[in-house]
Amino acid sequence: MTTLEILKNAKAAAPVLAAASTESKNQALLAMADALMANQEAILQANALDMEAARGTVSDVMLDRLALSESRIAGMAEGIRQVAALPDPVGAVRRRVERPNGMVIDRVGVPMGVVAIIYESRPNVTSDAAALALKSGNACVLRGGKEAFRSANAIVAAMQKGLETVGMEATLVQLVQDTSRASAQELMTAVGYVDLLIPRGGAGLIKACTQNARVPCIQTGTGICHIYVDAAADQEKALNILENAKTSRPSVCNAAEVCLVSAAIAEEFLPKLHARLGEKVELRLDTQAAAIIPGKAAGENDFDTEFLDYILAVAIVPDVQAAVSHIRAHSTGHSEAIITENTEAADYFTRTVDSAAVYVNCSTRFTDGGEFGLGCEMGISTQKLHARGPMGLEELCSYKYVIHGSGQIR
Amino acid sequence: MTTLEILKNAKAAAPVLAAASTESKNQALLAMADALMANQEAILQANALDMEAARGTVSDVMLDRLALSESRIAGMAEGIRQVAALPDPVGAVRRRVERPNGMVIDRVGVPMGVVAIIYESRPNVTSDAAALALKSGNACVLRGGKEAFRSANAIVAAMQKGLETVGMEATLVQLVQDTSRASAQELMTAVGYVDLLIPRGGAGLIKACTQNARVPCIQTGTGICHIYVDAAADQEKALNILENAKTSRPSVCNAAEVCLVSAAIAEEFLPKLHARLGEKVELRLDTQAAAIIPGKAAGENDFDTEFLDYILAVAIVPDVQAAVSHIRAHSTGHSEAIITENTEAADYFTRTVDSAAVYVNCSTRFTDGGEFGLGCEMGISTQKLHARGPMGLEELCSYKYVIHGSGQIR
Repeated sequence: MTTLEILKNAKAAAPVLAAASTESKNQALLAMADALMANQEAILQANALDMEAARGTVSDVMLDRLALSESRIAGMAEGIRQVAALPDPVGAVRRRVERPNGMVIDRVGVPMGVVAIIYESRPNVTSDAAALALKSGNACVLRGGKEAFRSANAIVAAMQKGLETVGMEATLVQLVQDTSRASAQELMTAVGYVDLLIPRGGAGLIKACTQNARVPCIQTGTGICHIYVDAAADQEKALNILENAKTSRPSVCNAAEVCLVSAAIAEEFLPKLHARLGEKVELRLDTQAAAIIPGKAAGENDFDTEFLDYILAVAIVPDVQAAVSHIRAHSTGHSEAIITENTEAADYFTRTVDSAAVYVNCSTRFTDGGEFGLGCEMGISTQKLHARGPMGLEELCSYKYVIHGSGQIR
Repeated sequence: MTTLEILKNAKAAAPVLAAASTESKNQALLAMADALMANQEAILQANALDMEAARGTVSDVMLDRLALSESRIAGMAEGIRQVAALPDPVGAVRRRVERPNGMVIDRVGVPMGVVAIIYESRPNVTSDAAALALKSGNACVLRGGKEAFRSANAIVAAMQKGLETVGMEATLVQLVQDTSRASAQELMTAVGYVDLLIPRGGAGLIKACTQNARVPCIQTGTGICHIYVDAAADQEKALNILENAKTSRPSVCNAAEVCLVSAAIAEEFLPKLHARLGEKVELRLDTQAAAIIPGKAAGENDFDTEFLDYILAVAIVPDVQAAVSHIRAHSTGHSEAIITENTEAADYFTRTVDSAAVYVNCSTRFTDGGEFGLGCEMGISTQKLHARGPMGLEELCSYKYVIHGSGQIR
């Protein structure tokens, strides 16, 4: 099927899903989960072909991301069941106003319509994204990476079988059959068909969307996250948080990339930082920091790079104001933290740092839908329009006003 | 000054405003209002030049929109004072979650940054838009129509004087000095400078933004609003509402353009409609309606036209399902109403019509920030991303998460 045909099918199927009851959507989700389990063999076979083709051409990390197993498929099914258990954002009255003339105005959650998701090679994103879209009442058009194409096709085929067992349209969850750049471009420009485009991937994909998208689009992901260790920091907390934010999972967008240290405590704190992280993390130091501890001199781009690796750029700043200025100049607007016991410094930092998540005395690693209590996540928005930070079910929705009256005129 | 210089100034001024207290923003607004009154003479002189240049080249309606007087300027000042009295959306905690690990996660309103507004010739939009932007913490870049350029310049100059008297940057409110299409295009593509673009104008401007905008943009305005008179309608209510929605102010986007009538009552209702509206409104009838009452035969485009005039397209539909299908095919997603005493029909209509405002038994004319209790309005969004329907102060904002912890790591 061509991408345009897929989009037309999605558009045709969306209104029925938008009006579907919570119960029927949950039944569909459970059926999708069951179908994943029932079609495990076919999915594993498809995955084996993907793995065979990928071996030798991609890194071991990539290969591991691509690999499916019985337990990973069971995990995907469990993920879908968890989405079924979440509250339904559609039809929820977000705000009610009764006007003096007797009209009652409700602001009610509604689906966007057709949500398109461009992503890379982890097969579980296929089922996660489909489940979140379905629960939020959106038909979804998935466009995965070419390495996982066979796996994704088998996963989607299984989920479609599940949809059909409960009498729902299989076209509510579809996979684009073309993994070339042309199909991504087609989704970006499908005005009238795509109500929301979510690119999940590297900086190149996000940039391409910014430049080319004609449909509503949410930028996700890139995180150059800062941790500022204030003069009034509890330094033990600071070390624990820096270690966690840098080393617990360096490949993710909420990992810290830059540490800013107040000049007032640099002489005392930097040696501790070096002792705690120096062995497993490469420290890239500005001139002032390099005068205090050993490490590599920071290069021109080191304060503007999402390393996604065991590398931390370190700079000394005069005070919290300078820390905020540095962040304003270098941040991608994802997550930043201040470590301080001084309320004034914390307030200044949270008020003036313009990022999706601004932390006082905790790790940037918490920027995540599950950790924020949203129960799930479709990605982390780094833009300010519509949704910011972790996007859960509500962020996949719009709203409309429903007004009940008894003949009111203006 | 070039548009790029203006944008750079706005971007530089925005962070200070974003962190300003409610009190200092309100003081600035009151100073802006006072300055409008104090500079009344200069504004009226500039307006006289605009009027002189426009006379003969634009319609009388346009001339009236363009004209300022002492009382209109007083009205503009009063409008600014009313915005000062509204609650501040910046810093407001929209939602608070306490997590099991003790972290407190607040979702806090924050400004977008720099808001650009492209509008036409009503001079009062200049002060309205500036006031709403300032109160919501946004620096604004205004790009008005060429007919009102001198007036807008004088109004902005006065407001800037007001800002300076309270020690705020004059560059928080600026007018683009070029009224050619090139400047609109420049705003649409000012990635990194414009955080939100709001085009207020005709279908041509909106379309140009959809096609060309690279910055976050909210489509406003165009309204092909429908009123469906159900089989179970209170017909007297229906007539009152239709008369109000069509004739109280036909030139605005929330005026009704199309009336759909249930076949079950068409023979009875259409003659009443003709009796009530036939004299002042031109009825354009589909074939079935034309068999019942006199009127002009509807042309090919009459069900897809925003008349903004004393014209109403009328069609007969079998039932509420058919009415919704018609609306889905022809609506611009602005405002639609059902007139019925049948709860089931009303529920079906409100659940399945996908427009910004869906009414039961009231006039579509209520789609307005003031009427919805928002206290003001920057325009009416007809898109689903970010804001839908009347945009008040909150809709000019984004949010960020502020997380307070005590050393939590993940």
